[in-house]
Amino acid sequence: MTTTRTARTFHLTTRPSGFPAPGLFSVVDAPLPAPGPGEALVENLYLSVDPYHREEMDGGWELNTPLEGRAVGRVVASRDPALAEGDLVFHRHGWRTHALVTAGTPGTRRLPSYEGVPLAAHLSILGGTGLTAYVALTRTLELRAGQDLFVSAAAGGVGTAVGRIARLLGAGRIVGSTGSPAKAARLTGELGFDAAFDYHDGPFGELLAEAAPDGLDAVVDNVGGDQLEGAIGALREHGRIAWVGAIAQYHSAGRPPAAPRNLYDVVGKSLRLEGVLVRNHGDAQGELEDLLVPHLRNGRITPDVTVVDGFERTVDGFLAMLRGENTGKMLIRTGA
Amino acid sequence: MTTTRTARTFHLTTRPSGFPAPGLFSVVDAPLPAPGPGEALVENLYLSVDPYHREEMDGGWELNTPLEGRAVGRVVASRDPALAEGDLVFHRHGWRTHALVTAGTPGTRRLPSYEGVPLAAHLSILGGTGLTAYVALTRTLELRAGQDLFVSAAAGGVGTAVGRIARLLGAGRIVGSTGSPAKAARLTGELGFDAAFDYHDGPFGELLAEAAPDGLDAVVDNVGGDQLEGAIGALREHGRIAWVGAIAQYHSAGRPPAAPRNLYDVVGKSLRLEGVLVRNHGDAQGELEDLLVPHLRNGRITPDVTVVDGFERTVDGFLAMLRGENTGKMLIRTGA
Repeated sequence: MTTTRTARTFHLTTRPSGFPAPGLFSVVDAPLPAPGPGEALVENLYLSVDPYHREEMDGGWELNTPLEGRAVGRVVASRDPALAEGDLVFHRHGWRTHALVTAGTPGTRRLPSYEGVPLAAHLSILGGTGLTAYVALTRTLELRAGQDLFVSAAAGGVGTAVGRIARLLGAGRIVGSTGSPAKAARLTGELGFDAAFDYHDGPFGELLAEAAPDGLDAVVDNVGGDQLEGAIGALREHGRIAWVGAIAQYHSAGRPPAAPRNLYDVVGKSLRLEGVLVRNHGDAQGELEDLLVPHLRNGRITPDVTVVDGFERTVDGFLAMLRGENTGKMLIRTGA
Repeated sequence: MTTTRTARTFHLTTRPSGFPAPGLFSVVDAPLPAPGPGEALVENLYLSVDPYHREEMDGGWELNTPLEGRAVGRVVASRDPALAEGDLVFHRHGWRTHALVTAGTPGTRRLPSYEGVPLAAHLSILGGTGLTAYVALTRTLELRAGQDLFVSAAAGGVGTAVGRIARLLGAGRIVGSTGSPAKAARLTGELGFDAAFDYHDGPFGELLAEAAPDGLDAVVDNVGGDQLEGAIGALREHGRIAWVGAIAQYHSAGRPPAAPRNLYDVVGKSLRLEGVLVRNHGDAQGELEDLLVPHLRNGRITPDVTVVDGFERTVDGFLAMLRGENTGKMLIRTGA
């Protein structure tokens, strides 16, 4: 089924200091591998590039070996009885054109054939970012109908998924921060937020107080630093924060990020600040699909994605995502 | 029943900057009030002086009016049908020799006559500090049998109660920090801790790692600052922190306290940091008494208290408590 005879992978050759440069990566070609017994060869169709990769560049990723990330692809040859040629597979061997996978290993699963659901949904609102949003809202925040919510980095992959899912769960006011007036306009337009603002427009606490004048019950924070501080300030007593990430510190070259100066308000207002690691919540995937697939099929929800075309542009897409140039989940389309 | 004709109260006359001086307070005498319809006159027997009073000095307490705090006393005259002369009452009008109370108002309750339970227990392990410890352990931390626990300021009122109650709940290793070698010895001696250390003895993170070499599941933090930072460092994945107070910032004269430099580990280890406000958990009082009263009666538990004698020494006791000179709950005995 596949015509190419070469498998291409990205390697990291040098660790970054601060914002990474494209020259830290290289493409390494190898002959297309043949699946061994129990393995299937997958041709990747979409690759996921994610904020957490920036952290992996500091140590999680080994140098000069094929990088990893979430991907979806199609089986082109199989010696795994659980996978047939043509099957669609979600797996962890992204950042490459082809991958050898084994059904049943952690992180690898045959995708259900949800008619009418775009393939890109499986790496966005039905993928790790959607699951992060779902778990943050339902398990960490235990969001109840009518509660008012703030999401930082709202136009990103997790942020847009939080907005969509919170609406389905009956949230009250949904407020988001983002990095440009154009993205703020998209948030209150097609993305369904009640209020949004560009964090460059003033002191963060003041901008958030304007957007949520009656305070907040719940926060999903992707940023840390002064956005976390502003969120602590705006929360009502017993408010909760699902802390998903800290973009604010990714480019700080090893310096510790600014901690919120008002952290003691966690005691004063009896707040809860809790970290969310989606890897511990794989069991929620079924719930997420039960909630979303009907809406994806009837078009009430479409996956919010920015797609960069071409495997060789994977690093460009990754860096553009780190610069905040995407709206929704950033994906690389590698398929022919 | 009472012989004195004067009611004495403490007023705050000037707000402190940093550690408070005794001269900021004054004693104001007035004629003994007579209870009006529905009121009872209580002669106070014990007054509670607590860390949170330090915060009230900054704004919660009005200047030049009688101060408030938890107290227990005996009814000496009553026009409240729910209170008889001789009844023991827990109420909020401490820092004075006599108080007018009304049964059924928030914070006022007639004490059950638990035979064999010392009166001081009602202001320590059965009082606000005991309830704080109980709620932190059972509701915030949801402590399970076998879990390893660290308590900061372990020799104080909340700290000793945490140690006692955690043991009854089946905790694993119980570790505490304190401010002197003598108090560390008492913690591992009569107070039943498995390990304890004087925080002056070295970098906090190293001391805690020595005392809890296999890590921690749960923390009750009374201190903030570098002790909170050390606790974050020592917690295992999914660990929880019940944050009760921040002694570290009480004397900082308005400067924000040092926030933990490793706060982002809350995401990396999926930790939960949650503030505990005991005022929201009055409904747990019955559970606390059900758990403790049998042990107080049979002497398996005795209230851990330091008692200062004499109403006029209330401020001395309060300041000694802020300096950490007490072991267990600091109380003032005012009764004849």
